[in-house]
Amino acid sequence: MHTTLEKNTANFGVAWEQAYGYSQAVKVKDTIYVSGQLSHDRDGQLVAPAALDEHGRPRDFDNMAEQMRQTYRNAAELLAQFGATLDHVVEETLYVLDVGAAFKAAGAVRKEVYGSDQPAVASNLIGISQLAFPDQLIEITFRAVVPD
Amino acid sequence: MHTTLEKNTANFGVAWEQAYGYSQAVKVKDTIYVSGQLSHDRDGQLVAPAALDEHGRPRDFDNMAEQMRQTYRNAAELLAQFGATLDHVVEETLYVLDVGAAFKAAGAVRKEVYGSDQPAVASNLIGISQLAFPDQLIEITFRAVVPD
Amino acid sequence: MHTTLEKNTANFGVAWEQAYGYSQAVKVKDTIYVSGQLSHDRDGQLVAPAALDEHGRPRDFDNMAEQMRQTYRNAAELLAQFGATLDHVVEETLYVLDVGAAFKAAGAVRKEVYGSDQPAVASNLIGISQLAFPDQLIEITFRAVVPD
Repeated sequence: MHTTLEKNTANFGVAWEQAYGYSQAVKVKDTIYVSGQLSHDRDGQLVAPAALDEHGRPRDFDNMAEQMRQTYRNAAELLAQFGATLDHVVEETLYVLDVGAAFKAAGAVRKEVYGSDQPAVASNLIGISQLAFPDQLIEITFRAVVPD
Repeated sequence: MHTTLEKNTANFGVAWEQAYGYSQAVKVKDTIYVSGQLSHDRDGQLVAPAALDEHGRPRDFDNMAEQMRQTYRNAAELLAQFGATLDHVVEETLYVLDVGAAFKAAGAVRKEVYGSDQPAVASNLIGISQLAFPDQLIEITFRAVVPD
Repeated sequence: MHTTLEKNTANFGVAWEQAYGYSQAVKVKDTIYVSGQLSHDRDGQLVAPAALDEHGRPRDFDNMAEQMRQTYRNAAELLAQFGATLDHVVEETLYVLDVGAAFKAAGAVRKEVYGSDQPAVASNLIGISQLAFPDQLIEITFRAVVPD
């Protein structure tokens, strides 16, 4: 039987952490596992929420780039709690409500946040049907590794 | 050229393991990769299957909590084959047919199975369009790490 | 503050690597993170593209097996750039537009490419709504580990 595993966690203190019961990021040994990040501010308010149609679904994907940028900012803030940066990211998965809009936004936003024309990051772009909040267009998970 | 990698695997012996050709869980070095788990019993019968409508799609998501609980039980059983428990989980992804129903169920079920009000687990909740079985509402993948 | 992480990358040189800004595969320490692979050839042309209906959506999923096989070929090519093979894969996630068609194809294709009746690979099969290209039926992400 294995003994207890040493885990360090990072959180924002937003309401859904307690409601759902999870950690925004967990560091075990040299790896940081970042939970799906989204575009919110310090108070847990969505940044650049999508306008909704009469069915409560996003009317358009115009805010994709802005939500994407804020999502990376939040990830960077969590990584900083472990003394890490986006340079330590090895893999990311972008779950998006519209792949076309996300692909269009992704080049400029990602090159900017990673500070490189071709970031050394494995990336997955997946079109899914539903995210946690109705006005949310994108969620990104990350894995980062720190040097020995 | 790298040599052969030592892998240990865990399985249930259900029919789809052979049909699809995979392992329910693989341990390499200190990490256990658990394939998408679902709500089935020892005989491979779905536990708490969703009632289906005339198109063969779930009529409602009422059994989400029960399927979720059984899914964690199955994951725990696989981890136990390596001497590990849910305490060693570092990251999970819940793929669900309805995010609202899953979010509603997730707090109570997850706090119970992880035995903590805020589990030290990175978690992703993703609404997707289709799972392996028509009466399946949820599938969960896990990564666990054992201490050195 | 952590110092710089040593990363090695592998790429094909296809157009979307520069447009989107990512690496097809990243090796850090003993782990290779392979970005979502798809069925394309050396020139970036889709192999066995789906026929599209009048809405620009796949008319059927008949080419699932062929796209799946080519996708594994591309993954193997990336792994080879690190001296690794599909034997070093520990986990894969198949994102597909139709789970039934993918499950039907997966057994034969995967046993063939992994060279085993029950590959020692954790596998996830997820039905999603949209991939990067309209005539693309499947995308597969991989994680591989090399021996010490």
